[in-house]
Amino acid sequence: MGKILTAFALGLTASVAMAGIARAQEPIEPVRPPASINLGMVELGKKLYFDPRLSKSGFISCNSCHNLSMGGTDNIPTSIGDKWQQGPINAPTVLNSSLSVAQFWDGRAADLKAQAGGPIANPGEMAFSHTLAIGVLESIPAYVREFKQVFKKDKIDIDQVTLAIAEFEKTLVTPNSRFDQWLLGRKDALTPTELAGYTLFKDSGCVACHNGEAVGGNSFQKMGVVEAYKANDPATGRAAVTGKDADRFNYKVPTLRNVELTYPYFHDGAARTLGEAVDTMGRIQLGKKFTADENAKIVAFLKTLTGDQPSFMLPILPASTDATPRPTPFGK
Amino acid sequence: MGKILTAFALGLTASVAMAGIARAQEPIEPVRPPASINLGMVELGKKLYFDPRLSKSGFISCNSCHNLSMGGTDNIPTSIGDKWQQGPINAPTVLNSSLSVAQFWDGRAADLKAQAGGPIANPGEMAFSHTLAIGVLESIPAYVREFKQVFKKDKIDIDQVTLAIAEFEKTLVTPNSRFDQWLLGRKDALTPTELAGYTLFKDSGCVACHNGEAVGGNSFQKMGVVEAYKANDPATGRAAVTGKDADRFNYKVPTLRNVELTYPYFHDGAARTLGEAVDTMGRIQLGKKFTADENAKIVAFLKTLTGDQPSFMLPILPASTDATPRPTPFGK
Repeated sequence: MGKILTAFALGLTASVAMAGIARAQEPIEPVRPPASINLGMVELGKKLYFDPRLSKSGFISCNSCHNLSMGGTDNIPTSIGDKWQQGPINAPTVLNSSLSVAQFWDGRAADLKAQAGGPIANPGEMAFSHTLAIGVLESIPAYVREFKQVFKKDKIDIDQVTLAIAEFEKTLVTPNSRFDQWLLGRKDALTPTELAGYTLFKDSGCVACHNGEAVGGNSFQKMGVVEAYKANDPATGRAAVTGKDADRFNYKVPTLRNVELTYPYFHDGAARTLGEAVDTMGRIQLGKKFTADENAKIVAFLKTLTGDQPSFMLPILPASTDATPRPTPFGK
Repeated sequence: MGKILTAFALGLTASVAMAGIARAQEPIEPVRPPASINLGMVELGKKLYFDPRLSKSGFISCNSCHNLSMGGTDNIPTSIGDKWQQGPINAPTVLNSSLSVAQFWDGRAADLKAQAGGPIANPGEMAFSHTLAIGVLESIPAYVREFKQVFKKDKIDIDQVTLAIAEFEKTLVTPNSRFDQWLLGRKDALTPTELAGYTLFKDSGCVACHNGEAVGGNSFQKMGVVEAYKANDPATGRAAVTGKDADRFNYKVPTLRNVELTYPYFHDGAARTLGEAVDTMGRIQLGKKFTADENAKIVAFLKTLTGDQPSFMLPILPASTDATPRPTPFGK
């Protein structure tokens, strides 16, 4: 028994040491679980994330377009907003979004809290206003109690709402992908094809932008370095935020975590499949035409980035009361 | 120890006997958990229930209008369909719907399985077709495997899809409401006001239609017995199914289980609050004007019918593949 334990302990030390070396050499880091989370705030934020009463119609919640059953996206090129308005840009996944340098494709929100208020008041999305949303929440005693318990304040305000949603979103990380298992030392977690894909991903230069814990999300880069990208949309990217001409068509590099689930791809959702996306990226960013075999290997590697999806009970929302303003899905 | 056990056993016998007496005298029965459920089929049906890829747009799932975070309804007068079409009728709650004599307000579907195929192919709702829905499912290997495991057949067909959704829906019963606790012998489960409301509910004649396990759902009755109901919609009720003039404005009596959560009320969703609904029902069905005090007591009783809401993990849907037909939310 003593011997077995010692042997096990030695094995563990060796594997941790190996993992340490492997990680030090790799440009991608494993996803870490979130630290110092306020659980009460998370539970409140989860309800708000699923509550369509934060929209004018009573039909659209955060989860409508960042659907946690579907990789935190809506899997359509651009989203559907109030009255079926067509959104201007592809909904980025909410998964691992806490790891991003900023929020939205153009980075106009500094963090998740700043992002969360956007869609609620955007006339093309949830089409509500912060004041009206607070009015709804204040009319529901169970919400009033829960906000008070979490924030210790007398009144609900939009800062509390967005802080709670952001706190929930911080829990939406996806550790334990096969690639991360490999990074952490489980050598048989990847097949030779997947490993070959990873080598190509590094050697071809993809990793210059897609690196770090989220395999992206940590810089703004021009879409169309070698060859102009013919976008399906009128967005100008980062320039809309900075006002600088040099930032035209600069977009936040999307995370590649769970990329198998977050189709279609690019800010205009124009790439239908992962193979198409890899082909286009090779061509316009790297001036490289991947062979069918290379493309398939890179795609095989990308599919190893799918991690454990968020796992939680469907939240039950507190009922409206007679005093709750009713949604207006039609008319007005 | 022996003595305590005996005393406990006697107490139990007495309380079961009392409950038996109470139940025999009451026109409402406690909700029972479902018997003989196929768990594999339930898990598959739960995924399908949450999967918007069964709609043309890729945006609308069963859960969009029968939202299990919100009492199995959408809490708007009439539902939103493909391209934001306004539905003709209020979405009934899916909770306890397995206890209904038939499905839809006019009972045109004999059971949950027959109902489940309706919205998928309805141009005003999910706007898809059964053939297209099967095409999507057949293109997703994880679904193909799961259907095969559950149904032991080589091909997916619409019967399997609707059978699985119906099996999941059978689990959506809500036992353990305070009223059921009272029925089962816990005398302090209701307040004197709530009990007075129940007495009024019985003595005024509400219970003539709203009885049994679902407190409704077990018969078709005319909307507007004493006084015509001025509906907000063109529906003619049961006559649309039977073709009989006598069935005009006959509708399935809705369940009152969880009625606190399933606002707004009536087939046209015209009653905004429970108080309004009780007032209208008294007037047009019973020729009775409830006083404010009577109305409040009945409403207090009705709120005791809220049971344990379905509690399960948010399902994670299997990803589409390159071969999966993509949704067409805009155009065409």
